[in-house]
Amino acid sequence: MNMSSRSPERLVHVPLGERAYDILIGPGLIGRAGGEITARLKGRRAAIVTDEHVAPHYLEALMDSLQTDGIEAVSLTLPAGEKTKSLEHLATVTDMVLSARIERSDAVIALGGGVIGDLAGFAAGIVRRGVRFVQIPTTLLSQVDSSVGGKTGINTRHGKNLLGVFHQPDLVLADTAVLDTLSKREFRAGYAELAKYGLIDKPDFFEWLEKNWTQVFAGGPERIEAIAVSCQAKADVVVEDERETGRRALLNLGHTFGHALEAATNYDSARLVHGEGVSIGMVLAYQFSARMNLASPDDAARVEAHLKAVGLPTKIGDIPGELPPTERLLDAIGQDKKVRSGKLTFILTRGVGEAFIADDVPPSEVLAFLEDKRLK
Amino acid sequence: MNMSSRSPERLVHVPLGERAYDILIGPGLIGRAGGEITARLKGRRAAIVTDEHVAPHYLEALMDSLQTDGIEAVSLTLPAGEKTKSLEHLATVTDMVLSARIERSDAVIALGGGVIGDLAGFAAGIVRRGVRFVQIPTTLLSQVDSSVGGKTGINTRHGKNLLGVFHQPDLVLADTAVLDTLSKREFRAGYAELAKYGLIDKPDFFEWLEKNWTQVFAGGPERIEAIAVSCQAKADVVVEDERETGRRALLNLGHTFGHALEAATNYDSARLVHGEGVSIGMVLAYQFSARMNLASPDDAARVEAHLKAVGLPTKIGDIPGELPPTERLLDAIGQDKKVRSGKLTFILTRGVGEAFIADDVPPSEVLAFLEDKRLK
Ligand SMILES: NC(=O)c1ccc[n+]([C@@H]2O[C@H](COP(=O)([O-])OP(=O)(O)OC[C@H]3O[C@@H](n4cnc5c(N)ncnc54)[C@H](O)[C@@H]3O)[C@@H](O)[C@H]2O)c1
Ligand SMILES: NC(=O)c1ccc[n+]([C@@H]2O[C@H](COP(=O)([O-])OP(=O)(O)OC[C@H]3O[C@@H](n4cnc5c(N)ncnc54)[C@H](O)[C@@H]3O)[C@@H](O)[C@H]2O)c1
Ligand SMILES: [Zn+2]
Ligand SMILES: [Zn+2]
Repeated sequence: MNMSSRSPERLVHVPLGERAYDILIGPGLIGRAGGEITARLKGRRAAIVTDEHVAPHYLEALMDSLQTDGIEAVSLTLPAGEKTKSLEHLATVTDMVLSARIERSDAVIALGGGVIGDLAGFAAGIVRRGVRFVQIPTTLLSQVDSSVGGKTGINTRHGKNLLGVFHQPDLVLADTAVLDTLSKREFRAGYAELAKYGLIDKPDFFEWLEKNWTQVFAGGPERIEAIAVSCQAKADVVVEDERETGRRALLNLGHTFGHALEAATNYDSARLVHGEGVSIGMVLAYQFSARMNLASPDDAARVEAHLKAVGLPTKIGDIPGELPPTERLLDAIGQDKKVRSGKLTFILTRGVGEAFIADDVPPSEVLAFLEDKRLK
Repeated sequence: MNMSSRSPERLVHVPLGERAYDILIGPGLIGRAGGEITARLKGRRAAIVTDEHVAPHYLEALMDSLQTDGIEAVSLTLPAGEKTKSLEHLATVTDMVLSARIERSDAVIALGGGVIGDLAGFAAGIVRRGVRFVQIPTTLLSQVDSSVGGKTGINTRHGKNLLGVFHQPDLVLADTAVLDTLSKREFRAGYAELAKYGLIDKPDFFEWLEKNWTQVFAGGPERIEAIAVSCQAKADVVVEDERETGRRALLNLGHTFGHALEAATNYDSARLVHGEGVSIGMVLAYQFSARMNLASPDDAARVEAHLKAVGLPTKIGDIPGELPPTERLLDAIGQDKKVRSGKLTFILTRGVGEAFIADDVPPSEVLAFLEDKRLK
């Protein structure tokens, strides 16, 4: 991990055989999208999916760049927010992609955050049983996490991401300049996922973040560096375990608790966005690990202190409004796809940078722990 | 190809690495389904999808067998027919599967023909990004074709099978006794796909069918033999080209014309079922190949004679009712996923057992040919 490199643009390659692809990271990539795409894909049609917050800023620049390079593109602008990851919107997107006569070698392009990426990627994975897919992630969260690795999906009344496919992108363009229009709150939410890589198995990176986080927020080389380190970390795990039958589950650190909290707030982003749920969830994972005598309470305190310093919520009590009874939170965890015949699977930890998969966590322990934590 | 084997049950293995699976072929397999499934899958829950024609005959026997072997099963009975392959029914199936708390190691079971198999397989492929899948095909067509190979999908207003995933089954149980309740018309439709394997690259098998087809219809060892040869033929192609980037396209012999005719009849099975479309489509492919001086008119006549002998439609004029103008038929072909930038991709032939992929067929030739054929 070379933290001192100062080149303005970075490339992370994801070596997945015939599904290998590049992630480009740096400012101004949207303006060069057409060239980067035509250099890699055969098709000359594209269907862009974006949302109402992103479109006014970046859609025209993207369309211009595609046109310049001879790509015929149409676009669909959807409402912003988690509720857009629904079967209804999936139907709208697939219909638009088919109307645009996108063939297997043409591309669906996701221009937006994780919501647009997950939805458009799912559509790309099922139209004609799979067409090309380009991710242009515009949130910090999507640049360091959701745009890499091929997980796509939508939510159902039974829970988050319960329908989806694995469909790797053919190219990821992480334009770091677009993060300047992102709200501070959304930037912080993405930062939680970025810090997650340090907490899983990169203690040096976490320490570097404790020192350099203000520059990551401000922009400049530290931001590019932190995003590149994160993409590399995610790529390494994905290459080792593309379909999450093992090690890839480590990326769910903080997510089992986080998803339960998102469900408990009915996916109302005014109250809690995904990365905030992950922030609280990671602190809970460290605290639960300490309670189970796996990790030191000092590590839990250190993690909480850093996430709090950057302005992230770290406690269940930080969520505004009423929450359902603790049993209902546990139900949401049970329906989560990480459940295994009665025992719960959690990512727990032995310290900073020492996460591991625990697949025999008794639901009763989790219930008692959560009861306890709600009161604080 | 050993046509003289007379063992009552056959096993065809599909060696797809970590996606490898068995196809069992013989009478009485539904009554043994529980044992065959528990011998291969870890999960002990199942969600059965079936249709209103099949359920009264076989659902109870299947549920009993599963219960005997300790599998907790729920079932969903859908309307019969091609229109069931829709996004609306996909939503119903995925909701039922999630309500049943099917996890990744549990199974969705398709009990029915190709419609149920394609729909349930698609659901199995997207719930939790993929759960286990067992095919119990109950039509001849689904036993020799759709249940093997992992193609799943639904139809949209833009055309057939335009949404779907590749999701291999974990087990196929082809109970040949259930074909006794199948209508003669549906049996014949499946026979078209069976004959297709001979026409693609097995001239000996086609010749064997010309001699033995009455016994295949009557049941007994010839039926099992013909189904086993077909499953082996399909498995061979699938193993060579799982995701249809090349040779697997040969299986589409007769299908490009066939799909256009299905679209032209608005998927009204009273007028045309899939296998009948394939029968007419295969004859058209031979006739078009003869017109292009690729094959002999004698081969086209031989193929037509055999399919006609078994009682299949072989001419556009065999379809009852009005058809749209020929240009509209061609449009349907163009929107079909086998189109490549303006030129049409067809499976053409140099004779019986000598099919090949032609990816540069001029639409104008097809138009003139179809205009001509409609008048006869
Ligand atoms: N597929 C995966 O591997 C994976 C991983 C992590 C998270 N996710 C999913 O990602 C989603 C969350 O993603 P997200 O946090 O990016 O949410 P998001 O897509 O909802 O974006 C957050 C908000 O920022 C706005 N926005 C996006 N880019 C902007 C920009 N440059 N300027 C101004 N506003 C901008 C959006 O319109 C939205 O209002 C969740 O659905 C989560 O399940 C998926
Ligand atoms: N996935 C693939 O690779 C693939 C390949 C070929 C065809 N297909 C698809 O398969 C579908 C056609 O399949 P199909 O011909 O089996 O149609 P189908 O599923 O509609 O079955 C035909 C009719 O027979 C009834 N039936 C089924 N089994 C019966 C039994 N044992 N006794 C009495 N009635 C029975 C059904 O209820 C239905 O009315 C099409 O949608 C086609 O696109 C898919
Ligand atoms: Zn996340
Ligand atoms: Zn077919």
